[in-house]
Amino acid sequence: MLQHLKNDLFLRACRRQTVSRTPIWIMRQAGRYLPAYQAVRSKVDFQTLYKTPTLAAEVTMQPVEILGFDAAILFSDILVIPEAMGLKLEFTEGKGPRFPQPLRSAEDVARLHVPKIENELGYVLEAIHLTNRRLDGAVPLIGFCGSPWTLATYMVEGGGSKEFVHIKSLMFQQPQLLHLLLEKVTAALVDYLNAQIRAGVHAVQIFDSWGYVLSPDDYEEFSLRYMHRLIASVKREGVPIIYFLRGHGCGLEKLAASAEVLSLDWTIDLALARQQTNGRVAVQGNLDPTALLATPEIVRQQAKKILNKMAGASGHIFNLGHGILPNTPVENVQALIAAVKEYGSVD
Amino acid sequence: MLQHLKNDLFLRACRRQTVSRTPIWIMRQAGRYLPAYQAVRSKVDFQTLYKTPTLAAEVTMQPVEILGFDAAILFSDILVIPEAMGLKLEFTEGKGPRFPQPLRSAEDVARLHVPKIENELGYVLEAIHLTNRRLDGAVPLIGFCGSPWTLATYMVEGGGSKEFVHIKSLMFQQPQLLHLLLEKVTAALVDYLNAQIRAGVHAVQIFDSWGYVLSPDDYEEFSLRYMHRLIASVKREGVPIIYFLRGHGCGLEKLAASAEVLSLDWTIDLALARQQTNGRVAVQGNLDPTALLATPEIVRQQAKKILNKMAGASGHIFNLGHGILPNTPVENVQALIAAVKEYGSVD
Repeated sequence: MLQHLKNDLFLRACRRQTVSRTPIWIMRQAGRYLPAYQAVRSKVDFQTLYKTPTLAAEVTMQPVEILGFDAAILFSDILVIPEAMGLKLEFTEGKGPRFPQPLRSAEDVARLHVPKIENELGYVLEAIHLTNRRLDGAVPLIGFCGSPWTLATYMVEGGGSKEFVHIKSLMFQQPQLLHLLLEKVTAALVDYLNAQIRAGVHAVQIFDSWGYVLSPDDYEEFSLRYMHRLIASVKREGVPIIYFLRGHGCGLEKLAASAEVLSLDWTIDLALARQQTNGRVAVQGNLDPTALLATPEIVRQQAKKILNKMAGASGHIFNLGHGILPNTPVENVQALIAAVKEYGSVD
Repeated sequence: MLQHLKNDLFLRACRRQTVSRTPIWIMRQAGRYLPAYQAVRSKVDFQTLYKTPTLAAEVTMQPVEILGFDAAILFSDILVIPEAMGLKLEFTEGKGPRFPQPLRSAEDVARLHVPKIENELGYVLEAIHLTNRRLDGAVPLIGFCGSPWTLATYMVEGGGSKEFVHIKSLMFQQPQLLHLLLEKVTAALVDYLNAQIRAGVHAVQIFDSWGYVLSPDDYEEFSLRYMHRLIASVKREGVPIIYFLRGHGCGLEKLAASAEVLSLDWTIDLALARQQTNGRVAVQGNLDPTALLATPEIVRQQAKKILNKMAGASGHIFNLGHGILPNTPVENVQALIAAVKEYGSVD
């Protein structure tokens, strides 16, 4: 697959190989800020969109074709796994995802099943096939999933959370039950990532979006352990794995033990992250998405600042530290891509 | 004042002097989890409570008298400063504080004035006098304020926030206007802390609750700089300053340059924090408040874990990493205090 790619900057940077310039893609690049996406989305609801392979492939292609990113990321949602495991999932307009029957007991956890990906998540695999056919090797396609801990938080809280009272109560009071849940979710994710890779994704990003709400000891026991197990169990065959996290200022050495790339937010200096990990991983990030609400000129300055910090270093993928905000002006995204392509030249 | 204290464990720990056991107080200890507080609060609204010195002193005393903490913290709110500077402040039941006319322009910032503390915040100073009279030297009294950056976020956003779009847009697009605002707020805080110290508080905690949403460079320019300036401008006369932060895993050395104590949340290991700061500051914290929702036995285990990490080290004040949750069972708080008093013996 790889030899056919016309633009392999992203994959070369993941492997810390030399590149002619820094590659760029951004989280949620196939999303609401883009008028072409809104045109598709206005006709169908969110779940129909990600469950219909032709539509998912269509919006996955848009940012690559319209804006010129160096990678495509499949349009989907991390919560398809809990849904396929048997948890009813609802998306309410403006309110985000909800599990109306969150997990609260051993019986709830016992009822979950490890899904047959080809049957129950066949629409994701079909979207991968369709997207790669349309991409025709123009840029690599990134698959993704949530981390075991992050998915567990949604499954136990029932949705987003501020204090994470339910999952933490489970952790403090019934740690063995939480481990059971994490093992089931990890088993489902191993199958899911293997299926995505067989279907043709060139890289995989695992979102540990809520890892940062744990203490370092609890992080190691309830998140990192399962991340390592998941990554070790995936049949990689050269497919790099990107470990997405937020707010982790310290302890990156341990995280760098299994993934090829760490995707970091703006609360940590990328140069410091490289230092902490002795250059053993590539780094992805880390512009603050709110910077994209400013003017094109300010966006260019902010991009330059990050590129200057990473000047001459291999293994940097330009990205935001978190998903792009829906009200971001497209001209600022264009300014960002142009700036990275202009200033990110390594030679 | 200090020589008259019957229990000076907290102040000795702030100064990293030897103590017979680890002292404990917890953030929001005068608050909703306590039935005695709810009894007072049921008769008056939140603003009347903190603006009425006899009532503020009453609820400040409750946790010390009922539960036996090693320090009292004045019942008040960090938003009294923006309010005294001229911003209308509302507390709506269940919704938290709001500034219905948030700052959005140079004119808005220009209209703010630096308040005369003795006149406009006389009720705070009077509450300090009354509390110290009732404490009669039993334990020290802690005063507090918000950091310049943290107050500015509320003043510009109009309340709590998830993305901090307005203050960050100001930062990216009109940094000089933000600096002007931070300078005004810092000037008000210098007067406020000096007045609190003259009125008799034994220590001061500065809450930089929202510092962690910034990149390291922006943190240094828009928060740390003003923290250092504030701390350097306060006439201390032996009163220790506690620098409260959240989520900062790295870069603690710089923060430790001016305050005596760093108050840390559970996302950083206290032992690592000591190492990073070469033992130059005392550390306060750092139990996760959600642990207090479990059972007394689990609370004891969690307390012991933290105490073991800090065993034999001077300069540790036991606390939560954030405010106590309103639905915390009082018996768990009692178990926590008992555990710290039992296991926290240094000799």
